[in-house]
Amino acid sequence: MVCVAIVDTTFSRVDMASEAIKVLRKKVPGLKVKRYTVPGIKDIAVAVKKLFDEGCDAAMTFGWVGPTQTDKYSYLAMSIALQMVQINYGRHVIDVTVHEDEAEPIKLKEIALGRAREHAENLAVILTKGPQGLTPLAGTGQRQGWPDVGPL
Amino acid sequence: MVCVAIVDTTFSRVDMASEAIKVLRKKVPGLKVKRYTVPGIKDIAVAVKKLFDEGCDAAMTFGWVGPTQTDKYSYLAMSIALQMVQINYGRHVIDVTVHEDEAEPIKLKEIALGRAREHAENLAVILTKGPQGLTPLAGTGQRQGWPDVGPL
Amino acid sequence: MVCVAIVDTTFSRVDMASEAIKVLRKKVPGLKVKRYTVPGIKDIAVAVKKLFDEGCDAAMTFGWVGPTQTDKYSYLAMSIALQMVQINYGRHVIDVTVHEDEAEPIKLKEIALGRAREHAENLAVILTKGPQGLTPLAGTGQRQGWPDVGPL
Amino acid sequence: MVCVAIVDTTFSRVDMASEAIKVLRKKVPGLKVKRYTVPGIKDIAVAVKKLFDEGCDAAMTFGWVGPTQTDKYSYLAMSIALQMVQINYGRHVIDVTVHEDEAEPIKLKEIALGRAREHAENLAVILTKGPQGLTPLAGTGQRQGWPDVGPL
Amino acid sequence: MVCVAIVDTTFSRVDMASEAIKVLRKKVPGLKVKRYTVPGIKDIAVAVKKLFDEGCDAAMTFGWVGPTQTDKYSYLAMSIALQMVQINYGRHVIDVTVHEDEAEPIKLKEIALGRAREHAENLAVILTKGPQGLTPLAGTGQRQGWPDVGPL
Repeated sequence: MVCVAIVDTTFSRVDMASEAIKVLRKKVPGLKVKRYTVPGIKDIAVAVKKLFDEGCDAAMTFGWVGPTQTDKYSYLAMSIALQMVQINYGRHVIDVTVHEDEAEPIKLKEIALGRAREHAENLAVILTKGPQGLTPLAGTGQRQGWPDVGPL
Repeated sequence: MVCVAIVDTTFSRVDMASEAIKVLRKKVPGLKVKRYTVPGIKDIAVAVKKLFDEGCDAAMTFGWVGPTQTDKYSYLAMSIALQMVQINYGRHVIDVTVHEDEAEPIKLKEIALGRAREHAENLAVILTKGPQGLTPLAGTGQRQGWPDVGPL
Repeated sequence: MVCVAIVDTTFSRVDMASEAIKVLRKKVPGLKVKRYTVPGIKDIAVAVKKLFDEGCDAAMTFGWVGPTQTDKYSYLAMSIALQMVQINYGRHVIDVTVHEDEAEPIKLKEIALGRAREHAENLAVILTKGPQGLTPLAGTGQRQGWPDVGPL
Repeated sequence: MVCVAIVDTTFSRVDMASEAIKVLRKKVPGLKVKRYTVPGIKDIAVAVKKLFDEGCDAAMTFGWVGPTQTDKYSYLAMSIALQMVQINYGRHVIDVTVHEDEAEPIKLKEIALGRAREHAENLAVILTKGPQGLTPLAGTGQRQGWPDVGPL
Repeated sequence: MVCVAIVDTTFSRVDMASEAIKVLRKKVPGLKVKRYTVPGIKDIAVAVKKLFDEGCDAAMTFGWVGPTQTDKYSYLAMSIALQMVQINYGRHVIDVTVHEDEAEPIKLKEIALGRAREHAENLAVILTKGPQGLTPLAGTGQRQGWPDVGPL
């Protein structure tokens, strides 16, 4: 049995977690999901840590970042924290973050859901096929939420 | 009994902590509060750590950040430190920060008090209902101190 | 007996440490001071750590930061390091930093000495009165080296 | 026998890892390679950690960074994480990163492959000749992927 | 006997390490030097850590940083890492870094060599005279590689 921690926020404007859970359930046999919802991105890392302590093997996190410079620093602090948790536990935390300044609001929902789905597929490959599951796609310019750009 | 650490600063121009404590007392049965006041945001993380060592189960911190680039780097250093404390202890630190450049001074007090109240409610839900207490609000665009923006 | 570590630099253009030591001696009964002078701000954190290992209960550090973007990144690295030391030891490091771009050179000396004095007073309150010694001033807009701005 | 961990991404637009592995195989006798492919740069550090736990002696990582400010913060988070892994294990992680804004797309492939090759040579020297293997080149303005600029 | 770790890069355009070693040999009786040359600044911290594990008492590092924003983030990652190593070991790492944007190329060599020499003298004072060896110069506006600016 594989346990995946799912951490998302009430700040986000799209329910990405539910989308990702659907994909994971389809792709990962015997999946156990533990979900934790927090207010915002600076509350995510500790929730992952708590679910790792309860035995989860990997995590997906779903952040939403405003457009100001302050928001970007909060994103940086969260990102460093998720690196620390990964290094402390030796477990993947696939971070799905949407930045409000990457597209018009009307487009953001589609990006968010697409990114959640595609990263859930990425994690499913790693969990079921191991370190070289994604190697056939190495250097091929995959994007999540946007069209792939392909290799040069 | 639940112990919540409350750390605030003399630099701040609004007493957010008292506002948050009022909400917490109403919402969390058997609450014990430990308050620690420090000069500025770079003194907050160690105070949280000391109160965690005394047995507090979670913390709320109340920062106030000036408008310069230097102030923003101090905010970043504080934010990284609060991530570390959360990861080290596996306990939430709900950070309520007001940035002087997010609104006119006259509006800042209202933002500060609203943010303190709403984040106190967030923490109360997590403490009393657990990891999925906030899940009904996941992806719904909640904001603290500003009007909610809603889901896309 | 209380031991306070004092770490300052030869890069600084004002001897802030001596000013702070004078205040601390007046305000903290049975004070023991250990001073360590290093070249610049990136050498401060390890000096604090060494003095904490020798038994100091808290520290004051005195940094001076040039006006370039590179100087600001060095300030950020130092600030993160001082957070780490505080979190590792559970002891306060009251950081007194002067930034060359916060005022004209002629004004900087006054700012530096005022900030050193006022932060020494802050630390004295914490050391002699504990976590709630500063609580009467919480949210009152205290500034160090500049006039207080008061509560909103 | 020497084991080198190779971590690359599906986000990258060039398969740098294969290029580097070719060089390493030629230059390092008895080389064992363990490859791990992840989605993007924020997934690299934990993969290195996992391969270090399996006994690898050093690592090469291959990142690709978009042109936005957000991409640069992700690069910073990854870079800090790779520093932490190196410090935790006392093993080199030679990081080969290509930034989309360092040249026109048509030029990026050549830069990427050249950088991978030249850093593989650097790592081979360190692994086979030790800490002073590169000392004859100290201060000589070596560049990877761009022409060397030479000493001043 | 005192052991000083010397870590420099092939990226640098000036051999600062040799200059610093000359000064250290003159000023520190019974000096043992261990030199480690790495490709670039992101490889420095782990080399220091390895030499500290071999028993060195302090380190000098010699970095060279390009002019782009990306270069500056790499500088920041290196700086944070050097802080971590210092804090982990309680040993000084005197970092001598030259930034390509601080002067015209023709001037950079002189700055680099001067900075290496003057910081070697700083380290020699700390190693031979202890924490207060530099105190007579505290707050006197010392600069390395540029003329001292003096106290205010």
